[in-house]
Amino acid sequence: MRIALLGGTGDIGQGLALRWAYDTDHEVLIGSRDAEKARTAAESYETELDSRGVDRTVKGFVNEMAADRADVVVLAVPPYHVGDTVDSVAGKLDEDTILVSPAVGMKGDEDGMHYHRPGAGSVTAIAAEAAPDDVSVVGAFHNLSADRLANLDVELHLDTLVVGNDTDAKDIVRRLADEIEGLRSLDAGPLANAAEVESVTPLVINIARYNDGMHDVGVTFE
Amino acid sequence: MRIALLGGTGDIGQGLALRWAYDTDHEVLIGSRDAEKARTAAESYETELDSRGVDRTVKGFVNEMAADRADVVVLAVPPYHVGDTVDSVAGKLDEDTILVSPAVGMKGDEDGMHYHRPGAGSVTAIAAEAAPDDVSVVGAFHNLSADRLANLDVELHLDTLVVGNDTDAKDIVRRLADEIEGLRSLDAGPLANAAEVESVTPLVINIARYNDGMHDVGVTFE
Repeated sequence: MRIALLGGTGDIGQGLALRWAYDTDHEVLIGSRDAEKARTAAESYETELDSRGVDRTVKGFVNEMAADRADVVVLAVPPYHVGDTVDSVAGKLDEDTILVSPAVGMKGDEDGMHYHRPGAGSVTAIAAEAAPDDVSVVGAFHNLSADRLANLDVELHLDTLVVGNDTDAKDIVRRLADEIEGLRSLDAGPLANAAEVESVTPLVINIARYNDGMHDVGVTFE
Repeated sequence: MRIALLGGTGDIGQGLALRWAYDTDHEVLIGSRDAEKARTAAESYETELDSRGVDRTVKGFVNEMAADRADVVVLAVPPYHVGDTVDSVAGKLDEDTILVSPAVGMKGDEDGMHYHRPGAGSVTAIAAEAAPDDVSVVGAFHNLSADRLANLDVELHLDTLVVGNDTDAKDIVRRLADEIEGLRSLDAGPLANAAEVESVTPLVINIARYNDGMHDVGVTFE
């Protein structure tokens, strides 16, 4: 499969790009609003992989071109850019494209991070509202520590919760998640359950802040 | 210490009572609005412990009397009874009493369970608003499967997240949690972070519903 990471120059995009390139044979495309920035990031990921003896091609494109080429498009952008980003690539998506939303809205104060639930119900719902009707939207990869993902020396041992209304699309995203070593996908139900998934992200940040020796906190369910 | 479980005839109360009685030497008191119901439940817990060769006294009282005798008072009641329950025992609490809130507000629909955030910000905040000013309120034990707690054959391997503004009170509750075998407490910060903790409960229920072979789902952080 071809996986495009829009906003793939950012931290969660970097982590997913490196893991998929390292652990799978899927083609990884880096998207950015700035094609040059995308190419620079893609080259740095190739260098990182090469230093570990993995010869992979990672290509950078402007977001629209990355989305146009991909089967699965991950919206690895801040929550307030999710709607705009979907709008900007909507003409390049077809009914076989799966859009994946990992973003979470949060607000911080002196006590910690708090879930900021959007009016649409969740950031995943924002993506679904902005997407063309025939494009499936799946929420996944919300609660992963970007630093832990991007450091290929670290064994993940993490779960990721997947939500969506299209079961086939959800299964494809779950398989892509499960192909990353140490990552296990779990089904959290339809898209209407996305807020409960997204709200784990501020919690793991608070746990990292208040417990000595806990950094890049992840979550597992059993 | 003396621990009173108000609403200790219910499922989470039963689980905590059995675990503390089984794993620690703390005195466990069962509270209910109906003293007879409390005594019947307490006797059934004694029988369960006795069947495992553990000779412990568990006593049942009307909530007010249980609270009056206890150092730590756990509000093991449904979320809509938290305020009333605190009001009903407020006269029996003193500045050394610690109130513990494990309740979570949820609403279910056809898709799953959803976090229902109270106007006060969290159920823990409702307890704090109802409590006398000199009584410390700590949120803990929200996301534990009651069935898993109550089945002493099951190894827990679970985390519980603890929130509160009084560090000493929080430390005492964390120690009580850590004394239950297989349970680890983590600090999730001040009481203002309670909503992020409480909202994990609907999530684990959704995960149990949508993943074959997962029942009584618990959560661990690392």
